[in-house]
Amino acid sequence: MKVLMLNLFFVTFSFAQAGLLPLPDRAPSPADNPTTRAKVHLGQQLFFDARISATGTYSCNSCHDISSSGENNLRNSRKPDGTFSRHSVPTVWNSAFQNAYFWNGSAASLEDQAEGPLEEMGLGDTGRVVKRIAQIPGYQSAFAKVFPGETPAVSLPHLTKALAAYERTLITPHSPFDRYAKGDAQALDARAKIGLDLFISVGCVTCHGGANFSSAELKRFPLFPGTSYDGEAANYRVPTLRNIEWTAPYFHDGAVATLEGAVDIMARAQLNHPLKPDETAALVAFLKSLTGEPPSQRLPRLPKLSSPFGEN
Amino acid sequence: MKVLMLNLFFVTFSFAQAGLLPLPDRAPSPADNPTTRAKVHLGQQLFFDARISATGTYSCNSCHDISSSGENNLRNSRKPDGTFSRHSVPTVWNSAFQNAYFWNGSAASLEDQAEGPLEEMGLGDTGRVVKRIAQIPGYQSAFAKVFPGETPAVSLPHLTKALAAYERTLITPHSPFDRYAKGDAQALDARAKIGLDLFISVGCVTCHGGANFSSAELKRFPLFPGTSYDGEAANYRVPTLRNIEWTAPYFHDGAVATLEGAVDIMARAQLNHPLKPDETAALVAFLKSLTGEPPSQRLPRLPKLSSPFGEN
Repeated sequence: MKVLMLNLFFVTFSFAQAGLLPLPDRAPSPADNPTTRAKVHLGQQLFFDARISATGTYSCNSCHDISSSGENNLRNSRKPDGTFSRHSVPTVWNSAFQNAYFWNGSAASLEDQAEGPLEEMGLGDTGRVVKRIAQIPGYQSAFAKVFPGETPAVSLPHLTKALAAYERTLITPHSPFDRYAKGDAQALDARAKIGLDLFISVGCVTCHGGANFSSAELKRFPLFPGTSYDGEAANYRVPTLRNIEWTAPYFHDGAVATLEGAVDIMARAQLNHPLKPDETAALVAFLKSLTGEPPSQRLPRLPKLSSPFGEN
Repeated sequence: MKVLMLNLFFVTFSFAQAGLLPLPDRAPSPADNPTTRAKVHLGQQLFFDARISATGTYSCNSCHDISSSGENNLRNSRKPDGTFSRHSVPTVWNSAFQNAYFWNGSAASLEDQAEGPLEEMGLGDTGRVVKRIAQIPGYQSAFAKVFPGETPAVSLPHLTKALAAYERTLITPHSPFDRYAKGDAQALDARAKIGLDLFISVGCVTCHGGANFSSAELKRFPLFPGTSYDGEAANYRVPTLRNIEWTAPYFHDGAVATLEGAVDIMARAQLNHPLKPDETAALVAFLKSLTGEPPSQRLPRLPKLSSPFGEN
């Protein structure tokens, strides 16, 4: 018993000392946008509403798929205006625990982030998105209830606040790593435990830390030559590694199809530490232990349109 | 009491004699595709899975929105290949009770219908849709369970059977008309009752009959001159009038924005019976009594992709 407890203590201590944390059950909310049940519900409706796109077929969920990986597993995504995104879509799962949004880290909060996709809905500017939402009677009353006394009730800041409040609930708990971090020594198998040790010792944890295996700071990539990214160095936000097994293809350009390939490139480009095949396999086993359980949720019902927008 | 019962009897008798029926709670299934819980679940997953489209952003739900009217309230829809549909999208709600699918009635069952949208997913042909689904391990096991002993488990007929089984559950009960038809005389107000009488007496019911206010036969439209459709006569399936309040814009071309406008055109083009404004208002009040309650459902979880498709 004493040995077991010492062992547990040691394990917990080592990854906690390295800065890795289990995923919280709830995300904190900013002082100016407290999470409320009604706001989350409104945000979910907006997230699933394709009426915010020029084509009427794109919602937030079209690219950040809540039924799936929180993204779309594509290199680039065709946008409502027919053009393709330059970068691979990041997952919305656990985005509450990110500190930098978009691949270039140009947004510092979920509220700021939400403006970006709204601008890409093919309606020219976000003003037309707001106008469409304001034209739906059920949204008028819902916004007035969620943001009492603030006029106009339907506004871009209110849209992004509601979307952010919903996104803060998109948390995937109960991954094997989280169960391990909370004391279940059996939650990781031997190979994944070797992978965790490697993750810390070779330096992955330097950038991929905290509860979300991410970082608040932008990082230069690549740092070392010898990969297909030579000569393309730029500063990127650090993507979460949670559910990474489920979010192929990898990197900002979605050019890498497998987790093994991504680990190999990161080890060389960022750590100048080429891995042996069994080390890569152990790291991949550990990374797969970061796959959590998306919460079950009800499909929202969207408020009815009183008359069509008269555009396609 | 005797008066009330007589009145109830008379009312029930009059619309039932005219061929109008309350909406059944469940839809019958064909002998070769019995509805089972596991098949419905699989069909729901497929319905929400955008991986069946070339862009990775279009699922069945993108145009037939289950969070909303079962369609997208647009005149035309941009398809994954960037082109626009010729016709307005019909609602999937209560499609179990249709007998003719597509505006030209070219499919006679939900199973046949499901092939059409799969062909339009921008992947060239349905063979590539099937190949993508077959590449997802969770679907392989689900299809094998739902269609035991039938190889290959993942096939186009199995995809369309699962989709059809799910669609047969998409029923919107508890409309005011249905409550009225089941004996609640207060479920329709005075104007809606006048509208119901008109619906029968002017002849709307001739084509829009049965439980789904539809018909198994194709009908020529327009029959009489004097509307914007002069000179464009063709044979169309009869769309359901259930939830019609929610499915603007109207007609095959989605050219009519309001229910009043649609009623006016139908009265002239099909019945040669121009309506007075109060008659139109009464018919619209009755038609709004056909709005039911979409069932609450859980957002499906989609099986994980083991490796990306490597295409956009």
